[in-house]
Amino acid sequence: MPIRLLIIRGALGLVGLLFAHAALAADDPLPAWNDGATKQAIIGFVRKVTNKDGPDYVPPGERIAVFDNDGTLWGEQPVYFQLLFAIDRVKALADKHPEWKTKQPFKAVLEDDKEALVATGKQGLVELIMASHAGNTPEEFQAIVTDWLKTAKHSRFERPYTELVYQPMLELLAYLRANGFKTFIVSGGGIEFVRAWSERVYGIPPEQVVGSSIKTEYAVRDGKPAVLRLPEMNFIDDKAGKPVGINQHIGRRPIAAFGNSDGDFEMLEWSTAGEGARLGVIVHHTDEAREYAYDRKSHIGQLQKGLDQAAEKGWVVVDMKNDWKQVFPQANQ
Amino acid sequence: MPIRLLIIRGALGLVGLLFAHAALAADDPLPAWNDGATKQAIIGFVRKVTNKDGPDYVPPGERIAVFDNDGTLWGEQPVYFQLLFAIDRVKALADKHPEWKTKQPFKAVLEDDKEALVATGKQGLVELIMASHAGNTPEEFQAIVTDWLKTAKHSRFERPYTELVYQPMLELLAYLRANGFKTFIVSGGGIEFVRAWSERVYGIPPEQVVGSSIKTEYAVRDGKPAVLRLPEMNFIDDKAGKPVGINQHIGRRPIAAFGNSDGDFEMLEWSTAGEGARLGVIVHHTDEAREYAYDRKSHIGQLQKGLDQAAEKGWVVVDMKNDWKQVFPQANQ
Repeated sequence: MPIRLLIIRGALGLVGLLFAHAALAADDPLPAWNDGATKQAIIGFVRKVTNKDGPDYVPPGERIAVFDNDGTLWGEQPVYFQLLFAIDRVKALADKHPEWKTKQPFKAVLEDDKEALVATGKQGLVELIMASHAGNTPEEFQAIVTDWLKTAKHSRFERPYTELVYQPMLELLAYLRANGFKTFIVSGGGIEFVRAWSERVYGIPPEQVVGSSIKTEYAVRDGKPAVLRLPEMNFIDDKAGKPVGINQHIGRRPIAAFGNSDGDFEMLEWSTAGEGARLGVIVHHTDEAREYAYDRKSHIGQLQKGLDQAAEKGWVVVDMKNDWKQVFPQANQ
Repeated sequence: MPIRLLIIRGALGLVGLLFAHAALAADDPLPAWNDGATKQAIIGFVRKVTNKDGPDYVPPGERIAVFDNDGTLWGEQPVYFQLLFAIDRVKALADKHPEWKTKQPFKAVLEDDKEALVATGKQGLVELIMASHAGNTPEEFQAIVTDWLKTAKHSRFERPYTELVYQPMLELLAYLRANGFKTFIVSGGGIEFVRAWSERVYGIPPEQVVGSSIKTEYAVRDGKPAVLRLPEMNFIDDKAGKPVGINQHIGRRPIAAFGNSDGDFEMLEWSTAGEGARLGVIVHHTDEAREYAYDRKSHIGQLQKGLDQAAEKGWVVVDMKNDWKQVFPQANQ
């Protein structure tokens, strides 16, 4: 064979290889996940429940997947992003509340005194949330959250919080939806706080967000009918509250549940104890370099029971460091 | 023109007319509605909000339509169907509760003593609902409701209750969905009671049902994780509770609301007070022959404020007798 032809054949072979690789990448629904047991477990589950001829087939309407938010879909360190919002909100409202200068937990917030804030305990945090979240309509509150998200940035990553969502989880949401799943957020965080941006960021509409809430009342205010947010807790969507919230909002048991902390334990337990194929996934934060590493002893997102019982319950534990090719969206991480 | 040709032309004209009429019927999305102002108001609204080039265009995700159930989608006379379920349920459980023989409101139910039952008042009804609805999981409860619906029949129409849904409203639900609307039920009735059959009968999945509810708790029972229904009220989805329930579950203000009683007043008021094109519809029961005629003085489905303020608020009042060609599905009404 003339050498010129050999070169052409070689070049064509290379082009062929490149195309095959491109095709493979295009076929991969989860490119930010490294190949391995974790990715295979997820894909295997989806194939099982969507296989019409298989024993584990689930009709589309019953393909309910629930996702915790903090630590599962976006970050939660060094402190819940919603708490940072509450703190900024208290500062923004301080002029209208001169009494806050001498009253805890507001005094601590205004003086940037973390120790004093922590000392006010759970009651202090609840008061902070009430004061910073109530007294408006859901539409007004969501507009405030949207504005805050435009300028607030994470102290370590120096990026807006809505960019600190996990790229592999965004792919997973899209992959499940492409396979006939309906995706829901089931967050310990505030339902209206998450609704303000869940559709834009996750493609999850407000009616598919379950979360903690304060009470509301309906009133005609200045001649305008409105729902008003009150400084009173309504529902805590955490731990055993998650199955309760899911049943209240969704009305059927999910077949797939994704969490990262023991606050998600009951949600995973209930979801995966149903009949037929089930998928329970725990995102384990093992990546100090690209994000954070924390579990059993963390003050936020504590994960203990979940790690202890995952194997026995058949839950998949995502090792963030090894299972994720990429953590946050875009290349500039 | 030869007479033969004239005949042919005439015949062709007739055929043309017949075809035109058939095409018209096929194009009619609401065949059980008589032509007139009511039907035109509904169709006109849908055309406006779906017209991409018009000033009233609403993107699909925001096309939220809410429907009351009792008296709007199915019947509610001579008494709420769910109360008849509760009564049958108490009778079915009586063997396990010998104390009911001497205790109100159960004694009244077991003795078919309507007067004594009414005399127990609201508290009596609440106790009846608690005793007949709690003590099981949502799955178990829905199975009980499903079983009941298979045999229970309406005293006057002698048809199962799920056949006493309004054909024009079924068409309306389908028409709205075909135009990108997401349809929700917002019922004063029990959320789990309606969820047991809403998908089968209305095409509305459990997660799109809002309703009154009893409290639930999560527990591991006999080694099985379960949500358990408790004999304690959680939420009353009626009157001013409807906008609250809608906000809690849906998280955005509907652009169309359908009701039949003053229990729906606030839902219609809030929905139609939003910006842009809005549709508020009241089903007025005016048809004693085919169904029932009742409004201002009815003990069930009382409609007073709604009739008084419909014109001022721009709400469409459906005159069941004149606007509906057909009331219930199938021809044997």
